[in-house]
Amino acid sequence: MTITMYDLAGVEVDRRFSPFCWRARMALAHKGLDVETVAWRFTEKDKLPTPNDGRVPVIVDGGKVVHDSSAIADYLEERYPDRPSLFPGAAARGLSKFVQNWTDALHLGLIRLVLLDIYKHVGPKDQEYFRQSRESRFGMTLEDFAQDREGRLPAFRASLDPLRRTIERQPFVCGEAPAYGDYIVFGAFQWARAISDFALVASDDPICAWRARMLDLYDGLARKSPGYGG
Amino acid sequence: MTITMYDLAGVEVDRRFSPFCWRARMALAHKGLDVETVAWRFTEKDKLPTPNDGRVPVIVDGGKVVHDSSAIADYLEERYPDRPSLFPGAAARGLSKFVQNWTDALHLGLIRLVLLDIYKHVGPKDQEYFRQSRESRFGMTLEDFAQDREGRLPAFRASLDPLRRTIERQPFVCGEAPAYGDYIVFGAFQWARAISDFALVASDDPICAWRARMLDLYDGLARKSPGYGG
Repeated sequence: MTITMYDLAGVEVDRRFSPFCWRARMALAHKGLDVETVAWRFTEKDKLPTPNDGRVPVIVDGGKVVHDSSAIADYLEERYPDRPSLFPGAAARGLSKFVQNWTDALHLGLIRLVLLDIYKHVGPKDQEYFRQSRESRFGMTLEDFAQDREGRLPAFRASLDPLRRTIERQPFVCGEAPAYGDYIVFGAFQWARAISDFALVASDDPICAWRARMLDLYDGLARKSPGYGG
Repeated sequence: MTITMYDLAGVEVDRRFSPFCWRARMALAHKGLDVETVAWRFTEKDKLPTPNDGRVPVIVDGGKVVHDSSAIADYLEERYPDRPSLFPGAAARGLSKFVQNWTDALHLGLIRLVLLDIYKHVGPKDQEYFRQSRESRFGMTLEDFAQDREGRLPAFRASLDPLRRTIERQPFVCGEAPAYGDYIVFGAFQWARAISDFALVASDDPICAWRARMLDLYDGLARKSPGYGG
């Protein structure tokens, strides 16, 4: 049976830019599960199946509704144990949590670089919601929060060092083959790619080569999704 | 047969303070292997078995000499496959590399907080070597490099967030049980503990509780080693 996934979209229905949705989307592909996505906007909270926490991803698998990307990964792993594992081996789930917490910190740096690009890509009603909710969260205007991204870029690129050094020496974060740890980190890059032409990393950065490998997975699933750059 | 491990020592023979040696020491204990350590000082490069790169850890297992903590972990895993795995599962080795690269970056912040404490704990000949080699590496005096550690502390503690958030929700970096990923990170804390009374983390920081769990492992192997604090 096809799984339904509610997926954050821009004003264009096929521009999908949530890093958390990309984690789930790649996890579903890793498991080889059929999925039908439903474009969802920030302001459509009443359109989500229950239970939810007002955000996406939310999946519906038969009668089961699961929300939150981590819970979805855990659910898929438990529900489909005979399909390729998202957490291969006893230590992978624990170690992937470390990668997730590192990536969540990375998001804080990344959002300052792409914030106005997100704003540009959502519809008028979502723009209003986005401005209000983010300005309240950050305690300043979007424009102030996002200013001087060129100045912030060197520190952001330096913060990628643990990723860079890892995928310089092995093809994927998880080693020889991609698994959930890769999808967590990739979500951040796919988020940026979907809405921004700002070059997060230099073209000769090993991270670019890893990102290209990720874009190629599952018949180019992520590459086919509208975005900027490679 | 007992394995010999060359282990960095301070002026006191039992003060062992190399983060890389602690990675190896914990890995040997994880495998349940008998080990005899040989105290080694920075300036005793000619006392190491061959081959070596002038640093410790170096282990001698029968006729086999292995140097570098990563190579030692890989060697132990391959040589003793029937003992508890340092990398449980297909993705653990790759993900542990990510943790290692994150920790190596952490060391850069940590060394500024404990540099002068290292200097105080090594003998006169090693002090001379340490000052010369580190001042050359850092391009400034030890005292300049280490100044204002109280001022640097908040940023250092913030940089521990990925670790903190991970071990808040699970007992070990690797999940329910410790493995090499834990030993990598723990090496940094055991390095500091051996030579410094400076509080890297607040006593109510979840990292303290994880550190205590690590100190308890293998009959309190790390806790029994001379150091400051818990």
